[in-house]
Amino acid sequence: MNRLLFFASERQGDRVLLSAAQAVHLREVLRATAGQRLRAGIVNGTPGSILVNDLLPGAEARFHEEADQPQEDSLGLDVVLALPRPQTLRKVLLALPQLGVERLFLVRSARVEKSFFASPLLSDGEWRRHLLAGMEQAGSCWMPRIELHPLFRPFVEDRLPEVLAPSTRRLLPHPGSAPGLGALWGQTLPGRICLAIGPEGGWQDHELEHFNAAGFEEHSLGARILRVETALSVLAGQVALLRQGAPMQASPVKSSTKETR
Amino acid sequence: MNRLLFFASERQGDRVLLSAAQAVHLREVLRATAGQRLRAGIVNGTPGSILVNDLLPGAEARFHEEADQPQEDSLGLDVVLALPRPQTLRKVLLALPQLGVERLFLVRSARVEKSFFASPLLSDGEWRRHLLAGMEQAGSCWMPRIELHPLFRPFVEDRLPEVLAPSTRRLLPHPGSAPGLGALWGQTLPGRICLAIGPEGGWQDHELEHFNAAGFEEHSLGARILRVETALSVLAGQVALLRQGAPMQASPVKSSTKETR
Repeated sequence: MNRLLFFASERQGDRVLLSAAQAVHLREVLRATAGQRLRAGIVNGTPGSILVNDLLPGAEARFHEEADQPQEDSLGLDVVLALPRPQTLRKVLLALPQLGVERLFLVRSARVEKSFFASPLLSDGEWRRHLLAGMEQAGSCWMPRIELHPLFRPFVEDRLPEVLAPSTRRLLPHPGSAPGLGALWGQTLPGRICLAIGPEGGWQDHELEHFNAAGFEEHSLGARILRVETALSVLAGQVALLRQGAPMQASPVKSSTKETR
Repeated sequence: MNRLLFFASERQGDRVLLSAAQAVHLREVLRATAGQRLRAGIVNGTPGSILVNDLLPGAEARFHEEADQPQEDSLGLDVVLALPRPQTLRKVLLALPQLGVERLFLVRSARVEKSFFASPLLSDGEWRRHLLAGMEQAGSCWMPRIELHPLFRPFVEDRLPEVLAPSTRRLLPHPGSAPGLGALWGQTLPGRICLAIGPEGGWQDHELEHFNAAGFEEHSLGARILRVETALSVLAGQVALLRQGAPMQASPVKSSTKETR
């Protein structure tokens, strides 16, 4: 845990209350001591630190805003992902905040089992715990936004045009002879980037046609076949590298507080 | 499972024998049928296919070499990794073949618990199962080579100079103000690359001094703090992208059959 996170609703003035889990973690894993200052932050808000005087559940701590902490670089990155099996989705949710992905659109695909949409992971709020754990690992205050789309065509035809700015570069990793993302190096990437990552076995032909019609360009990830969570990390790393070659000018979507599911 | 793998010792002429696990996986997961042709390969050997006539443990299958399959691109990538806890190491071992890492040097660091070196994962051959699972996922015939080094200084001072060619570019991701890997884009990367990934909390100062003396350059991975397995995938993705900007000319180490532990 590299940053203790509190929701804005849990903050009262400059005071936050330690949850039971946080108190235990501080005592038993971080071996924190009373009087210690620790990195903290408000979810979708300000980074800062807390001074802990008491390491018990419900103990008050003083929250101190620190706007001069190193800024997170925005990748301007959204991901469309064929809904994976729950055990994979947990890994994805944990990875998103570490990778700087800002929005995740979980969609149906012909190769996605319908039962995955009924997973307790999606319905009982467990997904939020995994995101928070990823934010605490990353030291990030920003919670990625998640949308769930059980119907493929309405998502691609109606929702995507709503949420992606026209300037968004749309990329679709796919086995085959397309060039790798390196072809984009040095190109101006003025806006956001959206990646469409398929299910195991890949998107089906008719799904690819829809993505192509929506402006997605295919590119290759190489001859080796990656697990979903590995592909996501590899691709986010490559987008981060591309941003170093052509800094982004578009503003991130992070400032919005609306969260849709 | 994207490729069925057999050890050379299990091959007799053009015949291989299905293991119990393979027979079950073919029947129950891949729902293979008799007469079907499936991607296969010999570990550290030739890719090809098998024709399965019988889906029972110990059943014979005919192995057919197919040298014209898409070549795996070599990243020429080695990784030095502070030995992580076993549950993390399992994920790392599974990821290595997907990422194209060729050699992994697991080393002691001041922040590594000594007990990790006594893990059954390292002593009973379980590590090899995870590598094989990663190879089957990736569709790769190449088994990464693993070396275990319970002493830090002898590794950095004696072993590294033996195993790294002088032209190897040595990179060390570290929090701080160093530039990202993008600074290497377009630079000639004539030889192999070696990454030194630290433990949670990072390498200690005296360890950094040893790595610096051994020619490692620090670079930044950004403000977010990554789990080891996530950092590995991000970095391997970035190295793959850099290789697209400056194709490697050096030969891989893969051809060697010697494996040290």
